[in-house]
Amino acid sequence: MKTLVVELGARSYPIYIGAGLLEQDEPLAGHVAGRRVLVVTNETVAPLYLDKVTARLERFAPVAVVLPDGEQYKTLADLNRIFDALLGQRLDRRTTLVALGGGVVGDMTGFAAAIYQRGVSFIQIPTTLLAQVDSSVGGKTGVNHPLGKNMIGAFHQPRCVVIDIDTLNTLPDKELSAGLAEVIKYGLIRDTEFFGWLESNVDRLLARDPETLGFAIERSCRNKAAVVAADEMERGQRALLNLGHTFGHAIETGMGYGSWLHGEAVAAGMVVAAELSRRLGWLGAKDAARVGALLRRAHLPTQVPAGLGADRMLELMSVDKKVEDGQLRLILLKGIGDAVIRSDVPRAAIVEALDFCGAGG
Amino acid sequence: MKTLVVELGARSYPIYIGAGLLEQDEPLAGHVAGRRVLVVTNETVAPLYLDKVTARLERFAPVAVVLPDGEQYKTLADLNRIFDALLGQRLDRRTTLVALGGGVVGDMTGFAAAIYQRGVSFIQIPTTLLAQVDSSVGGKTGVNHPLGKNMIGAFHQPRCVVIDIDTLNTLPDKELSAGLAEVIKYGLIRDTEFFGWLESNVDRLLARDPETLGFAIERSCRNKAAVVAADEMERGQRALLNLGHTFGHAIETGMGYGSWLHGEAVAAGMVVAAELSRRLGWLGAKDAARVGALLRRAHLPTQVPAGLGADRMLELMSVDKKVEDGQLRLILLKGIGDAVIRSDVPRAAIVEALDFCGAGG
Repeated sequence: MKTLVVELGARSYPIYIGAGLLEQDEPLAGHVAGRRVLVVTNETVAPLYLDKVTARLERFAPVAVVLPDGEQYKTLADLNRIFDALLGQRLDRRTTLVALGGGVVGDMTGFAAAIYQRGVSFIQIPTTLLAQVDSSVGGKTGVNHPLGKNMIGAFHQPRCVVIDIDTLNTLPDKELSAGLAEVIKYGLIRDTEFFGWLESNVDRLLARDPETLGFAIERSCRNKAAVVAADEMERGQRALLNLGHTFGHAIETGMGYGSWLHGEAVAAGMVVAAELSRRLGWLGAKDAARVGALLRRAHLPTQVPAGLGADRMLELMSVDKKVEDGQLRLILLKGIGDAVIRSDVPRAAIVEALDFCGAGG
Repeated sequence: MKTLVVELGARSYPIYIGAGLLEQDEPLAGHVAGRRVLVVTNETVAPLYLDKVTARLERFAPVAVVLPDGEQYKTLADLNRIFDALLGQRLDRRTTLVALGGGVVGDMTGFAAAIYQRGVSFIQIPTTLLAQVDSSVGGKTGVNHPLGKNMIGAFHQPRCVVIDIDTLNTLPDKELSAGLAEVIKYGLIRDTEFFGWLESNVDRLLARDPETLGFAIERSCRNKAAVVAADEMERGQRALLNLGHTFGHAIETGMGYGSWLHGEAVAAGMVVAAELSRRLGWLGAKDAARVGALLRRAHLPTQVPAGLGADRMLELMSVDKKVEDGQLRLILLKGIGDAVIRSDVPRAAIVEALDFCGAGG
């Protein structure tokens, strides 16, 4: 088992990465605060891992809530199911919530923990690659609104993250690929060497070689932890983690939540960002091509869906959290491993890049 | 105009108290952060003060949301109306929410501000006595759940509180009395002299004498600000502000939100707390009688509703936020102006005090 630490002063916490971690009580049970536990999971993950996790936490008399599976259920109304369970079972402030599942379960459970009785503890047990390398680390929690992704939420850090690599054995191929989009993102924004390693190892990752997956997860978490430690509340460089996300969120919202996986939308969004960077003269054509090539090898989409025109994409992007005083902030590339935040990109350039990448096509 | 400051380091903020404050742009407009404003109010307050407030904030192109009036609408579902307005109008992170109304509007607006895009600024303009002396100060925000009051929420401090005493001219008598319950509370928990002053001045307060009301509001806010500054997150003495509230919340939940005003329920709850304190030998019979007498003179209820038996009250209290590890924490009195937190009160004593105060009667 490897242990990384997200350094956030009094709110620092460990990330445990290893095989078979759900077969043993520690480190999970040792991080429970209080006397009771509520496990939040979904109907896909519950039959696979819920009994295992509740067995680990038996001394806390665990109770479970099983949510429907899918981004379309990441709503304020569905969040209420968690509160119904907490209050129905009379679970008080000294309860720890445990998120067992992918990004949706993790974001909703963390948000419920942030606002239940004005804040209780929670633990992340991510079971998808995307959640393991990205959403379970860093304390961003929340739900969607019909008009925008993650528009309602809070910063709330978990007490620990337990990543059992064995859970990837039950992950559908499509979801494995979606997770790889966020893995590739770290290479693009701040880790040139890792990007090169991914170009050499993407096939082994798709074949689920445990050692290769373990390395990619650890390296991704290291990158995420470093960025979050430097800028927890996203006042500056944490925004770099949003490469491809402004375009991606527009795709997810525009196509209807649950129609594209988050990682798929981010992949297409990163291609638009690379293409826009190339058009603005910051990224060489060869490097821009490497971005699309690696994503394609990971079986990820590299085109904006034809149904969404550039105008509709821009309209959807205008409500993104990266907008300030009406000015769109975009993450762009100056090279592989070198991202920048720009608020001065001409609308015409964005439209051209979107058109080139398939929007309105 | 008087100015008090809630001392919370970087999150310190002023409370302005005076007559005619809604007739002038400052101090209100100077505290807006960002470029836009959303005013949240309700259908009772909107016809009285909304035009006035939007006129003060004209340079921020204010938009308004008008919520239905009443505690029964303080729900997660109704909160969504605020997000619908924010996103429908494409208001981004650099928006300030303004709460114009009583405690329900203030709690909901503050909570919406706490979780919109993971946190935006807000300003309190309380228009009921209860909101002016209590709920608008201190950063507790949230909504109710059918099984418990204020169970979903966050700590989120406003940028300022603007108390225009003139707004009390339109307040129904019943609501004025409800506000007096919280005013009297400050005397009971930490300000013996103020309690004596209230015994001498309660009739002038009910007659809405502006000077007398102004003094009571200022003194109440001073007490609240001091407690909040010492213990923002309620790790210790802030809990004293909950005198009567554990019983009161049970009454509100048990009778159905909106049936009793919050201040009315707190008044009855304070009588139970005083009676329980007397039975435990901490409060003299004469002082216990003074509590009930002053509340009655303020036209407040001093009996638990007959429909709620002691067992049902205890069941409702068991989900209160003051419960930890299944142990009920109660605020009790050792004298007028001297409150304590106790977790060791025998259930039988609570039942007797509840029975004596009308529950099950």
